[in-house]
Amino acid sequence: MSPTHTAQLMDGTGLARRIVEATATNAAEISQRTGVAPCLATVLVGDDPASVTYVRMKRARCAKAGIRSRHIGLPASTTTAELVDTLTALSHDPQVHGILLQHPVGPGIDERAAFEAIAPEKDVDGVTMHSFGTMSFGLPGFVSCTPGGIMRLLDEYGVELTGKQAVVVGRSPILGKPVGMLLLAQDATVTYCHSRTADLPAIVREADIVVAAVGRPRLIHGQDVKPGAVVIDAGYNPGNVGDVDFDTARTRARLITPVPGGVGPMTIAVLLAQTVEAAAQQCHGLVG
Amino acid sequence: MSPTHTAQLMDGTGLARRIVEATATNAAEISQRTGVAPCLATVLVGDDPASVTYVRMKRARCAKAGIRSRHIGLPASTTTAELVDTLTALSHDPQVHGILLQHPVGPGIDERAAFEAIAPEKDVDGVTMHSFGTMSFGLPGFVSCTPGGIMRLLDEYGVELTGKQAVVVGRSPILGKPVGMLLLAQDATVTYCHSRTADLPAIVREADIVVAAVGRPRLIHGQDVKPGAVVIDAGYNPGNVGDVDFDTARTRARLITPVPGGVGPMTIAVLLAQTVEAAAQQCHGLVG
Repeated sequence: MSPTHTAQLMDGTGLARRIVEATATNAAEISQRTGVAPCLATVLVGDDPASVTYVRMKRARCAKAGIRSRHIGLPASTTTAELVDTLTALSHDPQVHGILLQHPVGPGIDERAAFEAIAPEKDVDGVTMHSFGTMSFGLPGFVSCTPGGIMRLLDEYGVELTGKQAVVVGRSPILGKPVGMLLLAQDATVTYCHSRTADLPAIVREADIVVAAVGRPRLIHGQDVKPGAVVIDAGYNPGNVGDVDFDTARTRARLITPVPGGVGPMTIAVLLAQTVEAAAQQCHGLVG
Repeated sequence: MSPTHTAQLMDGTGLARRIVEATATNAAEISQRTGVAPCLATVLVGDDPASVTYVRMKRARCAKAGIRSRHIGLPASTTTAELVDTLTALSHDPQVHGILLQHPVGPGIDERAAFEAIAPEKDVDGVTMHSFGTMSFGLPGFVSCTPGGIMRLLDEYGVELTGKQAVVVGRSPILGKPVGMLLLAQDATVTYCHSRTADLPAIVREADIVVAAVGRPRLIHGQDVKPGAVVIDAGYNPGNVGDVDFDTARTRARLITPVPGGVGPMTIAVLLAQTVEAAAQQCHGLVG
């Protein structure tokens, strides 16, 4: 890399906009054909301000794309059994095509039990073990939204994955683990790193593709980025800071996602796209 | 390593025997307490000689451990729907505690659809997406038998996993992928390699723990084994040859599984142990 090298930015904002536009067209087509607009149920337990804001934002995006949303707000005192009942009822409700349980659901609730109450065909947020299985085994199904967004970005920028060394930093059930499985399904050699990894910089230095997904500001030092690598920063920390030291990393990487405007906007775009896809599957054969 | 160094062998035969002995004791206790012996249903489609032999061997081992088995042999012409029906019926049969579908099931059948018809609480072979999810997320559940056997061997020999570099060669749904997830759950840094990996020897050279699980004779060269590494050979090829060049690898490794007598015997031991565990869970509260 020359001293003046600057990586190309991976424009998540633009790609997300195009996905949402296509999604709105599909939603309108389904509404017209069947008389039923795609519908996302959003479930929120408690009143954590950040979660309230996220859900409101997602519902506003739905509305703009011609997707109905039905909001179920539950008190913070909700038990696991009550939440499971709510999600089971939504799973059986033919008016609802996709289900989003805003998480974290807070202490005292078994989040995994709640996720598993979502029917796989309505799991448009890709949080169930079934969806993790389909992602892992390369089968049709919904993907976790942020991992799905990352894969679309890689595809959009023509990043070759076969035989490449991909390093995923982070191993959460809806981000690190599934994105590693999606990369593996596309024939990358995948290394999972995490808080107990002995020498993270040494592993990052070998990576053709780095996916940072831990939520620790500037955990990945720019000087550890291999020249010409592709850097995906799925971290989002206070002050618009990612998990990667962007300023240094961009002098070495070939492609890099900015924070914000990289991975972030992709998550909702995939959620909307999958909701309409779910509606299309469930309304298949319906004629309005 | 000195020129005369020889790795300690990881004795799967001995460990498997001890697991089966403990399993027989547990099976007898359940039989006595509830009046019901643990029961494994074995399902075989077609008459592939190797599969017939495997099923016969598993049933003989069950009998020796005080586990009943019920065999369902289906013709090679069986459809996916018929196989799913059979497995669904066994999933609902209170007399059956564990279900083993001998695989590969042969062409013309959707193996994944068949696996998914097995109830998670009877998935003692660890083949469902639900079991893959519980393995991946560190939740209680049954494990795939060979990966489970590998983890027991590592535990038996006191192999520290936290922060170690583990390299898994192979990515099948019931061997490579789950063993990687089990290693990750125990805080290893895990790299998945496979047929498209660009420079396998270079990656193996960095590994503290190598798990070879592809079924290609001597794919892993002994001289690529890091001195002091732990080598697990889950390959089994004609002529009792593993995926690792054993003779050279043992001059460098600290611990190594022989082939045969390493990983092989562990698979059935875990199957039997999980069958009795399933029976214990399902008979909980029953008093004979």
